[in-house]
Amino acid sequence: MTRRLIKGATILTMRDGDAPFVGDIVIEGAAIKSIGGDLSQEAVDEVIHAAGMVAMPGLINGHNHTPMSLLRGFSDDLKLMDWLEKKMLPAEDRMNEEDIYWGAQLAMAEMIRSGTTAFADMYIHMNEIAQAVVDTGMRASLTRGLVFFADDGGKRMSEAIDLIDRWTGAGDGRITTMFGPHAPFTCPPEPLTEVIALARQRQVPIHIHLAETKEEIVKIRENYQQTPTEYLYHLGLFEHNHVLLAHSVHLTRKDIGYLRGMRGGVAHNPLSNLKLGCGIAPVVDLNSQGITVGLGTDGAGSATTLDMFAEIKAASWLQKLDYGDPTQLPAKTALQMATIESAKLLGIADQVGTLEAGKRADIILIDLQKPHLQPIHNIYSLLAYSATGADVDTTIVNGQVLMRNRQLVTIDEDELFRQVGKRVPRIVEGI
Amino acid sequence: MTRRLIKGATILTMRDGDAPFVGDIVIEGAAIKSIGGDLSQEAVDEVIHAAGMVAMPGLINGHNHTPMSLLRGFSDDLKLMDWLEKKMLPAEDRMNEEDIYWGAQLAMAEMIRSGTTAFADMYIHMNEIAQAVVDTGMRASLTRGLVFFADDGGKRMSEAIDLIDRWTGAGDGRITTMFGPHAPFTCPPEPLTEVIALARQRQVPIHIHLAETKEEIVKIRENYQQTPTEYLYHLGLFEHNHVLLAHSVHLTRKDIGYLRGMRGGVAHNPLSNLKLGCGIAPVVDLNSQGITVGLGTDGAGSATTLDMFAEIKAASWLQKLDYGDPTQLPAKTALQMATIESAKLLGIADQVGTLEAGKRADIILIDLQKPHLQPIHNIYSLLAYSATGADVDTTIVNGQVLMRNRQLVTIDEDELFRQVGKRVPRIVEGI
Repeated sequence: MTRRLIKGATILTMRDGDAPFVGDIVIEGAAIKSIGGDLSQEAVDEVIHAAGMVAMPGLINGHNHTPMSLLRGFSDDLKLMDWLEKKMLPAEDRMNEEDIYWGAQLAMAEMIRSGTTAFADMYIHMNEIAQAVVDTGMRASLTRGLVFFADDGGKRMSEAIDLIDRWTGAGDGRITTMFGPHAPFTCPPEPLTEVIALARQRQVPIHIHLAETKEEIVKIRENYQQTPTEYLYHLGLFEHNHVLLAHSVHLTRKDIGYLRGMRGGVAHNPLSNLKLGCGIAPVVDLNSQGITVGLGTDGAGSATTLDMFAEIKAASWLQKLDYGDPTQLPAKTALQMATIESAKLLGIADQVGTLEAGKRADIILIDLQKPHLQPIHNIYSLLAYSATGADVDTTIVNGQVLMRNRQLVTIDEDELFRQVGKRVPRIVEGI
Repeated sequence: MTRRLIKGATILTMRDGDAPFVGDIVIEGAAIKSIGGDLSQEAVDEVIHAAGMVAMPGLINGHNHTPMSLLRGFSDDLKLMDWLEKKMLPAEDRMNEEDIYWGAQLAMAEMIRSGTTAFADMYIHMNEIAQAVVDTGMRASLTRGLVFFADDGGKRMSEAIDLIDRWTGAGDGRITTMFGPHAPFTCPPEPLTEVIALARQRQVPIHIHLAETKEEIVKIRENYQQTPTEYLYHLGLFEHNHVLLAHSVHLTRKDIGYLRGMRGGVAHNPLSNLKLGCGIAPVVDLNSQGITVGLGTDGAGSATTLDMFAEIKAASWLQKLDYGDPTQLPAKTALQMATIESAKLLGIADQVGTLEAGKRADIILIDLQKPHLQPIHNIYSLLAYSATGADVDTTIVNGQVLMRNRQLVTIDEDELFRQVGKRVPRIVEGI
């Protein structure tokens, strides 16, 4: 097994009680073997010199639709329904399996470059996305999105089960899977109840959109005389299942009560919610009820960027705005949302999300020798409020270096851009 | 005179009617000589190859306190009055003239690196800041901040006049100056009236904070039975003077009416306003009344970062949020706020802010060969919503290259970091 030594970094474990300290990390194979002050006595195959850099857990994107990176900036500044129906859906309809593979790889190139090591994805053609995860070396929780507008003869459902059977544990355990009933307004009670039962029986988590827009609130009220959260609650979703709730912008106080004690939690996507004019999720209120809130970007079709540092900033700033109180959601908490809290959403907090001996080596190194990251009064403030993904120097997943000195190791960017440039005109032609 | 050719860039002039096109720019000395499709027949001293890059006007930061970069991240996540009185003011009191010089240079290093070519600054020890502007090659509008809490024997006022007399036009015309009465709540009617008269007489613009916090509204109401905007209006500030209003978060509908027809306009600082929990300025409402709104960062003591691309994103996203409408403040408008609209605030729109033959050559080149900037459906969307300062490859001010291939030309970063590291412990010791 390859042994690597990260030498002389400022180490942020992101555990609650730990203070930053300068020290070393030994990686053995895919795992963190030890963390300490000076580990240079260890016999290693390679030393990664990290003086002047921060070592911290890789960022975890709690909600994404990776192939939508092909549609980045294609339909900004439009009303949500125009965005979705006139632009996104027609373009998505034209994507073939190879397009999906390259779109997913484009998203992964951006994520690796900006310090994201794991992500939760919900889309179609999941075999291609899974293959891209295997090829790029990232960690992912994959979900086949399920809508039940019309009877498709069980096609989507069988693809969802096939994804779970075929890919769970692939890529040296980097791939996990979930069931993905899309949202309350696209999943009537009967099929949704079936998915909930099946997920429980197979011990597979559920990834679902919830209360992203006011329109959804109105629609569910008209159909079921409930809020979307009540609708899911009364179907029993929060009783036993581990659930990853994306968005959760429009929650009543009662809704938050229904979520108390749930397994899993909420993936907050502040930039997508801003850009589509949806609103601000009640992050502080959710946290005060003990509900886990992680961070995600949503697809690049809405968010444009997949840089989790932008989400970290927005998450903190919007709660300060909402409360008129700059003490809300401080820097370290925002960074924890993007690491250990998102890991909890994906159900992989025992493996990643903090730097600890025995956990998988998903680590990023951030170069602080830049004017916007000097001087260092408070390292959490610099990382949360001034750093961007471009400050990440090195990205390591499962012990494998995916980027070093800002050069991607597992992705050929020239070929990637060539493939993207070739495919995009067909996908958007005439839309 | 040196002649340079920027070759094969995607050119965004940022003028209203112009569409992006691929072409060349010839710079002669400090000015843009010509812009066109293929200018390679021109005899030049140097060719800057810019295929795959955007050429656009340098960003203009409409409100800054540059030496506060020494206090970046020093007091985040605190209530505004704790931030100001317990942290910022004691630290500022300990800054000597050399500290100011290096703090200003630190800010300029970050600004040049993130594509900012000009800024408006209000601070103390302005000779040192002016010297840093001359040395770094940036463009700036400098202002000595004036508060009138107690009689200082005219010291501040004479420093303000000295700045204007001594530095206006320095650095080959890169330096302009303003009077800087700090804010309605620090400037009683009598001295403020004097400054307004003096500024009018000397034809010098005025830079002032307005309505940043709710506390200011209460204070001015108690003292003068008016809003802060009404207070300034009734002192005649908006009659003839060119005025740069920083913040302007808390404006009534009537206040906006008072500003209609004003010379100058508002410097919107969305991130500082978010981080300090102040609120969202009514940008769309101001624009709808024909009032110029540019963009600024405020000092790094509050904003942490001086990356104008972060302000561009926040400006757009917050208006979409405030209106629940994603069509508000679209990408190109946000980019114009950071270029030509900010240039109007500084009173230098005849010189910079758009790319046009005859204007000064303040130009940035942005490298699009990155996963987060591909594919190119809409170049304005990519720049406004996905680009960061780290994507700027080359920064040119007044025809002089200040950064090329991300290497600073006029600033020695090692010496800068050494000076900052040496000075900061004394400034914050025991605070």
